[in-house]
Amino acid sequence: MDTSELKSLFPLLNQNSIHYFDYAATTPMPREVIDEWVDFQSSIGVFIGKGSGILTERASEKLYQCEENLLSFFQANHGDKIIYGKNVTELVNIMAYAIEDFISPMDIILVGPYEHNSNSLPWKYLAKRCDAIFFEIPIDENGIPIWDYITKIKGKIKIFACSEISNTSGNEADLSKIFSLLPPETLIFIDESQVVGHRRLKKESRVDCKFVASHKMYGPKNIAASIVNNRLLEKMKPVLLGGGMIDYSGFVDTWKRDREKFFAGTMDIGLITAWSKACDFLTSLSFDKIHNIESLQHEKLLTFLMDSKHFCVVPGTSKSIISFYHHSLHAHDIAYALAQKNVITRAGHMCAGGILRKLEKHAITRVSFGLGLMDSDTSVLLDLLGDIDNEY
Amino acid sequence: MDTSELKSLFPLLNQNSIHYFDYAATTPMPREVIDEWVDFQSSIGVFIGKGSGILTERASEKLYQCEENLLSFFQANHGDKIIYGKNVTELVNIMAYAIEDFISPMDIILVGPYEHNSNSLPWKYLAKRCDAIFFEIPIDENGIPIWDYITKIKGKIKIFACSEISNTSGNEADLSKIFSLLPPETLIFIDESQVVGHRRLKKESRVDCKFVASHKMYGPKNIAASIVNNRLLEKMKPVLLGGGMIDYSGFVDTWKRDREKFFAGTMDIGLITAWSKACDFLTSLSFDKIHNIESLQHEKLLTFLMDSKHFCVVPGTSKSIISFYHHSLHAHDIAYALAQKNVITRAGHMCAGGILRKLEKHAITRVSFGLGLMDSDTSVLLDLLGDIDNEY
Repeated sequence: MDTSELKSLFPLLNQNSIHYFDYAATTPMPREVIDEWVDFQSSIGVFIGKGSGILTERASEKLYQCEENLLSFFQANHGDKIIYGKNVTELVNIMAYAIEDFISPMDIILVGPYEHNSNSLPWKYLAKRCDAIFFEIPIDENGIPIWDYITKIKGKIKIFACSEISNTSGNEADLSKIFSLLPPETLIFIDESQVVGHRRLKKESRVDCKFVASHKMYGPKNIAASIVNNRLLEKMKPVLLGGGMIDYSGFVDTWKRDREKFFAGTMDIGLITAWSKACDFLTSLSFDKIHNIESLQHEKLLTFLMDSKHFCVVPGTSKSIISFYHHSLHAHDIAYALAQKNVITRAGHMCAGGILRKLEKHAITRVSFGLGLMDSDTSVLLDLLGDIDNEY
Repeated sequence: MDTSELKSLFPLLNQNSIHYFDYAATTPMPREVIDEWVDFQSSIGVFIGKGSGILTERASEKLYQCEENLLSFFQANHGDKIIYGKNVTELVNIMAYAIEDFISPMDIILVGPYEHNSNSLPWKYLAKRCDAIFFEIPIDENGIPIWDYITKIKGKIKIFACSEISNTSGNEADLSKIFSLLPPETLIFIDESQVVGHRRLKKESRVDCKFVASHKMYGPKNIAASIVNNRLLEKMKPVLLGGGMIDYSGFVDTWKRDREKFFAGTMDIGLITAWSKACDFLTSLSFDKIHNIESLQHEKLLTFLMDSKHFCVVPGTSKSIISFYHHSLHAHDIAYALAQKNVITRAGHMCAGGILRKLEKHAITRVSFGLGLMDSDTSVLLDLLGDIDNEY
């Protein structure tokens, strides 16, 4: 399948005359994923539950099949469980409330240097609530994370949370190094939002929780998951209370066991079936092919930026994201100029203002790559950036 | 439009040979609502946000239009704001965390007598966290709520939370009486889940927060809302932290103002456009017509049950729900027998075990009504219940 055929799979990219470079924010859905949601609503429609016959039975079967598929796709370990939420932001927050009782005063909660607010603020405020110490891995003058700093920390590192690929710069965390430096009792949380659409996750026995988002990998929005192991699950208390998660309500309430204590309220199984279909879509295309497409466009843009007079690249290693700034123009003005020609990028602090201050920038422009992009899209982007580079 | 034409609007009811009586759990979506979601994903697809051009602009416009429509449909007061969540369960929990700082020891948190776990447990545990008193309105020996009990309460009633129609029995809360008895400073939260698909909400200046669910009114699942006034909003602190809700992240973090401090993470605007379409669908059909259809089927079932030898009706007043039990058969056995003939009802404790204990029942069978039902569906139900009544 060539890139033109690939593009034809995405209604959003065909119904609009756009050059879309905002995959790190949201990926478009291929037709087959959209159809899967419609099919669920038309044929099953309901939530799992007891006593209401054939539809709930089918919903339960579908959920079971899709969960097996998701666990396998995300390389979960045997016994790992899925907890659903509407987005990773919610799930990180719920996690931080759920393990509150596990944190004591002066414990250390350590996060990566390039975290999105959603993987930083919940941990920071967990630390505040528990009188624990919140600490970020420092970076050197080139923006490179100083992972060895972990060995200098004297206190008890109870929690380590990090994104595998940064949404701001595409910086990749050196997970195997990190795991080798952290003590075995530290609970490890990895935000895989910027990984799931670009390469297969590694099988990792050292990770206690992976956060994965459907809408970063060509699935629908409003569905995401924490994939947790039992060591973590047994430390978690329920956070959202209600129907579906309670075992017995009375003078003393008892909760359902295991992950079911996180099953409060009704959920759309159709979003999960569509997400599962997105996994199949990526598997059938192969991540190698995806990597080839992305790295080709990445290479072109990177070469241009390195050769440019006025643009400067924010250091990063992933092939899916390039962030940059202009010596005199504001990032928003650049993105606005591009948007006037239907080239869609993103500008600002990328929900990670803290990082930009470390980099001494107010705002950056981010270009991110994915399926549906064609050489012609990148040519338009490069022509426009070339004009800007020549004019200012 | 006759009931047969109405039924043809719902793919779920046409693709399955079922007699669906579980509207109180989930309503099916008409084709036009499903299409609206598909249309959004195909034409706009992205979340609101800055800097990425035409798509986010269109998403923001769409969101604005749909919100105006939702606020109007739900008879919001001038200045009321919408906070979104994946379901009402989440929203009640988030609310109970958000107003924690407003509750002092020995304050009273009062809830209705017929609450779903999702509108009871979050308030109960709010009381536990704050050393406040959790209290339920009592019922008399016929199951009638003793609303006058409110006047006997000596302490400070900070919170009153109640469903307008009970999901268990269809019991309707006497809101105007309740409002006249509560002191003006009490914050009032009404769960409208069992109302929104059946009649238009009343314009109510005394209510501080209405909880409304899309999937109880022919809209999609995984989207729901709290409609809050400013008096309440200014007492709420953010609960889910992350991108979209933070103003400045630094040594002292500052949150966005107003309802925007509840906008953490990415949301599917398509679910909101589809929900808004469901509002239009109900308005164009008219609630009078809906009421006529439901009360006709309700009347038939009620007459049968009252004349039966072995069935007994759980007292309730709404025309959208009838719950009942059999003198010797278990509710699950009845629902199972019905399900064998593709008659879909619901049996169990309806996520409200506490109420069933008050009624001295372990489980009940619930039949609930909505659009798409035909006389022939109710005939099948009545025939089967008639057989059970004669055989046991």
